Amino acid sequence: MSKPEPSKLANAIRFLAIDAIVKAGEGHQGVPLGMAEIATALYTRHLKFMAGDPTWPDRDRVVLSNGHGSMLLYALLHLTGYERFPIEEIRRFRELGAHTEGHPEFDVASGIEVTTGPLGQGIANAFGMAVAEAYLSARFGSQLVDHRTYAFVGDGCLQEGVGQEMISLAGHLRLSKLTLLWDDNRITDDGSTDLSISEDVAERFRVAGWHVVEVDGHDLEAVSAALTAAKSDLRPSFIACRTVIAKGLARLQGQRGGHSGRLHPEDADVARNELDWPYAPFEIPAPELKSWREAGRRSEADHAAWQARRDALAAHERAEFDRVLAGELPEGWRGVLLDYKRRALDLAEAPGGIMISGEINDLLKDVLPERMVGCADLEAPTSHKRRLKAFTADDRSGAYVHCGVREHLMGSMANGMAAHGGVLPLAVTYLAFSDYERPAMRMAALMGLPVKFVFSHDSIGVGKNGPTHQPVEILASLRAMPNMLVLRPADAVEAAECWEVALEHNSGPSTLVFARQSLPTVRKTHVQENLCRRGAYVLAEGEGGERAVTLLATGSEVAIALRARERLQAEGVATAVVSMPSWELFDAQYEVYRAQVLKPGSATVAIEAAVRFGWDRYLGQRGGFVGMTGFGASGPADALYEKFGITPSAIVAEAKRLLESSN
Amino acid sequence: MSKPEPSKLANAIRFLAIDAIVKAGEGHQGVPLGMAEIATALYTRHLKFMAGDPTWPDRDRVVLSNGHGSMLLYALLHLTGYERFPIEEIRRFRELGAHTEGHPEFDVASGIEVTTGPLGQGIANAFGMAVAEAYLSARFGSQLVDHRTYAFVGDGCLQEGVGQEMISLAGHLRLSKLTLLWDDNRITDDGSTDLSISEDVAERFRVAGWHVVEVDGHDLEAVSAALTAAKSDLRPSFIACRTVIAKGLARLQGQRGGHSGRLHPEDADVARNELDWPYAPFEIPAPELKSWREAGRRSEADHAAWQARRDALAAHERAEFDRVLAGELPEGWRGVLLDYKRRALDLAEAPGGIMISGEINDLLKDVLPERMVGCADLEAPTSHKRRLKAFTADDRSGAYVHCGVREHLMGSMANGMAAHGGVLPLAVTYLAFSDYERPAMRMAALMGLPVKFVFSHDSIGVGKNGPTHQPVEILASLRAMPNMLVLRPADAVEAAECWEVALEHNSGPSTLVFARQSLPTVRKTHVQENLCRRGAYVLAEGEGGERAVTLLATGSEVAIALRARERLQAEGVATAVVSMPSWELFDAQYEVYRAQVLKPGSATVAIEAAVRFGWDRYLGQRGGFVGMTGFGASGPADALYEKFGITPSAIVAEAKRLLESSN
Repeated sequence: MSKPEPSKLANAIRFLAIDAIVKAGEGHQGVPLGMAEIATALYTRHLKFMAGDPTWPDRDRVVLSNGHGSMLLYALLHLTGYERFPIEEIRRFRELGAHTEGHPEFDVASGIEVTTGPLGQGIANAFGMAVAEAYLSARFGSQLVDHRTYAFVGDGCLQEGVGQEMISLAGHLRLSKLTLLWDDNRITDDGSTDLSISEDVAERFRVAGWHVVEVDGHDLEAVSAALTAAKSDLRPSFIACRTVIAKGLARLQGQRGGHSGRLHPEDADVARNELDWPYAPFEIPAPELKSWREAGRRSEADHAAWQARRDALAAHERAEFDRVLAGELPEGWRGVLLDYKRRALDLAEAPGGIMISGEINDLLKDVLPERMVGCADLEAPTSHKRRLKAFTADDRSGAYVHCGVREHLMGSMANGMAAHGGVLPLAVTYLAFSDYERPAMRMAALMGLPVKFVFSHDSIGVGKNGPTHQPVEILASLRAMPNMLVLRPADAVEAAECWEVALEHNSGPSTLVFARQSLPTVRKTHVQENLCRRGAYVLAEGEGGERAVTLLATGSEVAIALRARERLQAEGVATAVVSMPSWELFDAQYEVYRAQVLKPGSATVAIEAAVRFGWDRYLGQRGGFVGMTGFGASGPADALYEKFGITPSAIVAEAKRLLESSN
Repeated sequence: MSKPEPSKLANAIRFLAIDAIVKAGEGHQGVPLGMAEIATALYTRHLKFMAGDPTWPDRDRVVLSNGHGSMLLYALLHLTGYERFPIEEIRRFRELGAHTEGHPEFDVASGIEVTTGPLGQGIANAFGMAVAEAYLSARFGSQLVDHRTYAFVGDGCLQEGVGQEMISLAGHLRLSKLTLLWDDNRITDDGSTDLSISEDVAERFRVAGWHVVEVDGHDLEAVSAALTAAKSDLRPSFIACRTVIAKGLARLQGQRGGHSGRLHPEDADVARNELDWPYAPFEIPAPELKSWREAGRRSEADHAAWQARRDALAAHERAEFDRVLAGELPEGWRGVLLDYKRRALDLAEAPGGIMISGEINDLLKDVLPERMVGCADLEAPTSHKRRLKAFTADDRSGAYVHCGVREHLMGSMANGMAAHGGVLPLAVTYLAFSDYERPAMRMAALMGLPVKFVFSHDSIGVGKNGPTHQPVEILASLRAMPNMLVLRPADAVEAAECWEVALEHNSGPSTLVFARQSLPTVRKTHVQENLCRRGAYVLAEGEGGERAVTLLATGSEVAIALRARERLQAEGVATAVVSMPSWELFDAQYEVYRAQVLKPGSATVAIEAAVRFGWDRYLGQRGGFVGMTGFGASGPADALYEKFGITPSAIVAEAKRLLESSN
């Protein structure tokens, strides 16, 4: 049996895609048909991977940034022999319950490195993976960590702003192990790319300091040569592959309909004839399948050598390497937080909310060397750099990435880092700018990535910078997101507890929200238990009789609630203050506990310097709200709290109104 | 009195900024001090404006995209004589209630063309203004509309992805009347720009087809010459001005602290000495003030000539021009919608939700020529182009902007168009991608701009494209946003009503959310009244006794609720279906009406193919929810509704559970 032509290998991808899409009744043929040769060149000649060991830490990473072309990836995973992509899965493309979803969904064990779909995310994730690789390589040495990151990318990803953010920073950081393969097919969903772009895209990469090669994307040898060149260049590489969309489908190739126009069985028949592929649907002839399966083992020797090097490590080195790759936390981290929590009771003066988080993170520096921090040009006001070195083109051992004013990239980078593994990413900026990051936050939640999104300047407490910088609706919008753990601590004690919760939470992202302004310590006595872990707890119980009023507050408003409680108690109204740093955690408690905390039947006032949206679920029959009803204003923080009526007096008045209305 | 040196005019800006910032105790001196000569060149020699008539329709527009440098703008508005910026306002910089807010806030009558602060928005707004100008000029002729748009821009705006989206599309569309003035000071909040960028930024503009001039930003003559050159070039212009941040403050200039480091009175003293400015704080010497005030009237002749041309128009032309500039709707638009609404009762088959909106908009084409539609590369699946021509580099009379895969720019462009006036912008994409647009949507809400954000593919009804493309949390996140009107119609009748509401709503943006899937007509009889205007209404009352169950639903779930009602009624349970296209509108109704609709005390089930977040406010004591609890999945839409239990059976079961639990 002679070795099959490479073109036949590429056609194996094509027909799997065609057959699956015809059967599913919908799908995007443009990418798998247009990039078949490119993918064949990469997977059969360059990619370091073992289909039999998808989680091999030193594998090259592949991201399908043009995620709608999912059949390209599924075809490759099937052909190279990934266990979870047998031919039955290909046949079930887009069916409910199949692993061949409309867009690839994150599952490393199956061979899917990251979820893609919303354009631009994938290449920004790939950037994050390359940053993680460089950091880990500096930390553990290239004998353990030395792999490349490849991304397939279409026009859309390069029109999205986050794409340019990535191009710019990857060039700046000279991430030489990052390679993009551009499907330059000149067609988008709307038609010719001429409708909306006329620049020389490759030139944009050159300007940003990338190594650029332009090739015929259907010339497998040329693509392969470009991939070879990329490996020896010290810059990130952009391989611009001129392609014909949906190549192989006579009726649609090179056309707008090539993107995702409906395929009919006759299209498949015509293609079989034209491409000399006389096989049944979903049938891959033995020689081609054999070649592809061999490709799936092409790194067998590398894999074994790597395994030997890892096994030869000193026990403590191996343990540490395995630990960070498993995403496990080390001994001692809790002690750091507990110690800080104890000391926080004695703080001489109230620190700024975000400064507390900065301090805690600085204390964690040595115990959590896997922690990497990205920040969007707000180093001083968010204060999470401190003793960290910068990660730069010349020093990969730094753990702090100066992201520039690129919040979206920062979030997507953090996702890529987390998906890569071995590092623990934080992304830090102002809460008002979380909207820029939100597409990435949603993907983190969808993938269940343990990214820590850290925000400062969380309310009108921002003050004079005014309403553009004052979040009012953003807490609600983040709490509404499934699988997003939102934490808003009230003081340094709660901050330590919330960081403990966030660090141990690894089934999804956490959002930690801090005030800009000073947070006086409201927790006056030390308890070993992490009270924040329950989401909400009684900070001060009503005294002098059965509780009549419950004040629910979060973050900087807890201190205001406590002042209101003093007044109500002075008037003989038994008033409790419940601190509620996390709705999601509280909702997960047993009903008995929730009832103890909320005391249904008591008059309940929620206090938050944000909109009421969402709070009603906790307000019961006699509930009120003290907070914002619209956007903020520019002025001193104290004056704004007065102006918008978030004051002890307003809380007292609302509590009394509720008490009276129920009498 | 001889004419003052231009450098003295620039220093007038500097000292107003320094004095205001010293007095306020905080602020960003970097921009006003670094761009003083640039601004002086623009305002004293090029800008077409009348300080005495800030709303003159044919004025040049100026956007301070680096909005933190607000004192630059306030100084200019004061110096040139804008009525609402007397020196008292400058003295009150950043005080509560002053018009000199931390960041400029949209108020055309005061001279502030747009709110800026979150970086990148301003230049994208400027792009939208330039598009609006080109369209209006094509429509009404250059004798009425012929002005330029200028934007001051810093490094941050050009690092943000939305900045590149703008660069790319403005170059493609050859918006020759758009000019950016770049404050190339090489310093960001974190320090040197070398920390996060190393590309030649000007080259990025050249690649995108811009006219680029590089000048010394403190050489007023050079800047002025560049502005002259920009006016005769057929491309958009980028004037890269090499500047020294905080120039004039010896201690801080050229330094990181120049950006916004605290200024002390001594800094001002030193600067007064160095710059030979022996005047008291907030004092502008008479010759300089006179020159500046003359600049504020420099376009007096142009203004008068324009006024004469406008007055000379035929009455109907003038009326139409005035109408669109006032943002008023023409005769006849309601009739189009009412007619469609009547016909919608007889639709032969259920149309796709977004197709209904496309159809309605197509019917509005001739009656609303001011309508401009932007769409992010989803023309076919969102269907809002139809008979519209494309707005292109060669044809400015087209009203449809192919935005490419650039959702963020699309939203910010729409804001710029609305702020400009004379056009009525729509921005169309999938709801899942609204996150990309959200920073712009927030700004629209904050500014109160009447942009129509139109979304398709609003739930798991998207089907096989899977969870990345299926919004579940996004309705809640948009409802949480102050001043955002969210509308989710259930069928073609409601769609017509919701469009009527959205078009008449001009104090803020509207979000119109449509299903991808077919929406059968649920409103069976024609009523003249717009029922959606009340936000919610009883679509079908409970029959055979007092209402026991209320089913609240929106959009595509209303039809499901009706099927559940049939079953409950068949079992003798008096069940009403309330259609609730808009929470905001419903919340604004009188309590009596709200109680009629919700019937407190009835068992209430809300049904929406989205998360419960926010619904509790309507659920009363006996409430339940049928919807999503997490992200969606990839599979046929019908199968997903089954899988996630959004079915008549589930609704019936929930209603019964509530009825039983209360017995």
